[in-house]
Amino acid sequence: MQIAVLGGTGDLGEGLVVRLAPTGVDLTVGSRDPGRATDSAAAYEATLAEHGVDTSIGSAVNPAATVDADVVIAAVPAYHLVETIESVADELGDAVLISPAVGMRHSDDGLQYNPPAAGSVTELAASAAPDDTPVVGAFHNLAAGRLADVDAELGWDVPVVGDDPAKATILELLEPVEGLRGLDAGGLGHAAEIEALTPLLITLAEQNDGLADLGVRFV
Amino acid sequence: MQIAVLGGTGDLGEGLVVRLAPTGVDLTVGSRDPGRATDSAAAYEATLAEHGVDTSIGSAVNPAATVDADVVIAAVPAYHLVETIESVADELGDAVLISPAVGMRHSDDGLQYNPPAAGSVTELAASAAPDDTPVVGAFHNLAAGRLADVDAELGWDVPVVGDDPAKATILELLEPVEGLRGLDAGGLGHAAEIEALTPLLITLAEQNDGLADLGVRFV
Repeated sequence: MQIAVLGGTGDLGEGLVVRLAPTGVDLTVGSRDPGRATDSAAAYEATLAEHGVDTSIGSAVNPAATVDADVVIAAVPAYHLVETIESVADELGDAVLISPAVGMRHSDDGLQYNPPAAGSVTELAASAAPDDTPVVGAFHNLAAGRLADVDAELGWDVPVVGDDPAKATILELLEPVEGLRGLDAGGLGHAAEIEALTPLLITLAEQNDGLADLGVRFV
Repeated sequence: MQIAVLGGTGDLGEGLVVRLAPTGVDLTVGSRDPGRATDSAAAYEATLAEHGVDTSIGSAVNPAATVDADVVIAAVPAYHLVETIESVADELGDAVLISPAVGMRHSDDGLQYNPPAAGSVTELAASAAPDDTPVVGAFHNLAAGRLADVDAELGWDVPVVGDDPAKATILELLEPVEGLRGLDAGGLGHAAEIEALTPLLITLAEQNDGLADLGVRFV
């Protein structure tokens, strides 16, 4: 399986690449800047090699990374999401598009969930994507720094939402990933409930001694 | 400490009483119907006695249950919340009011979070309470059936929100409760993020084999 991680030079992109690579999938780091994509891919390869995973990570500008991908992860901030999807729309073909972005705003009470008019950022991604592109929401609640630390244990759940059968492909993709358990969280209409968890995780880490880089587990 | 559980004859009320009683607090089951309150209190006492906890559970109509309470838990459905708070407003005195209710609606996609115009049900409770009553949000994400099963292990987190220092009282109240970990989740502005978790927990249990009566743990 070929996976393109758009915005793959960012913290979440790095975490997804180093956690997915050991399962044997083929990964390409996408970026607006081909030089940064190449540098990041080389750095991720080095990190993985240090941990006994010898693999080749591709790199390309976002549209080129998308061309041959089966799965495209838009690992960009919410405010770059629509332009990023539009920039690769012609290359998506049959790929499944994954949206992990969350909208948050600063308030007197810290970071709060700030959904767009579409109801959730994931639904905004769905509205920006070509009509025949399946859009799945996943990876919203992952603390990027801990995800990217290959030595860190996770034990996190990954709620996955989508209205298309392609959701099953993403749940299968997650099965061999150590420390992450993919769970079916229903249709795209549940995306806001999942996205809202992210500012809550940040606030809980801020407010409680001994908690940091939190994820969620449903027990 | 004297705790009144309004709507204490319901599933959540039962769960809260049987989980809080072993910590040594004094509990009163409140209800609109004094006979039902008495019956429930007797049943909870019997359950607790079977598990080695000999304690006396009070019972009263909601306003009478509120009079001497230090903490009042409005364990009623969201659509009864405002009238319940109004019915005890004159008796609240210095008590801290806890709001655990969540607004949900049925959609084509199952139960979804449905916040009121106040932003969250907890903030709706705050607007319905007297100005000098501290309102704290807690217990939103507890699967009532499992909570009420004294033999069931929980391992759940309880995010607690509030803008008043009384929040610390509720976190202290939770400390000795087995299976529940109270966490400071910031101000009331974060209540919607916590309430939205509840329909997500229900959906996850519906969609995934082997999951039922879910709570949440931040790890």
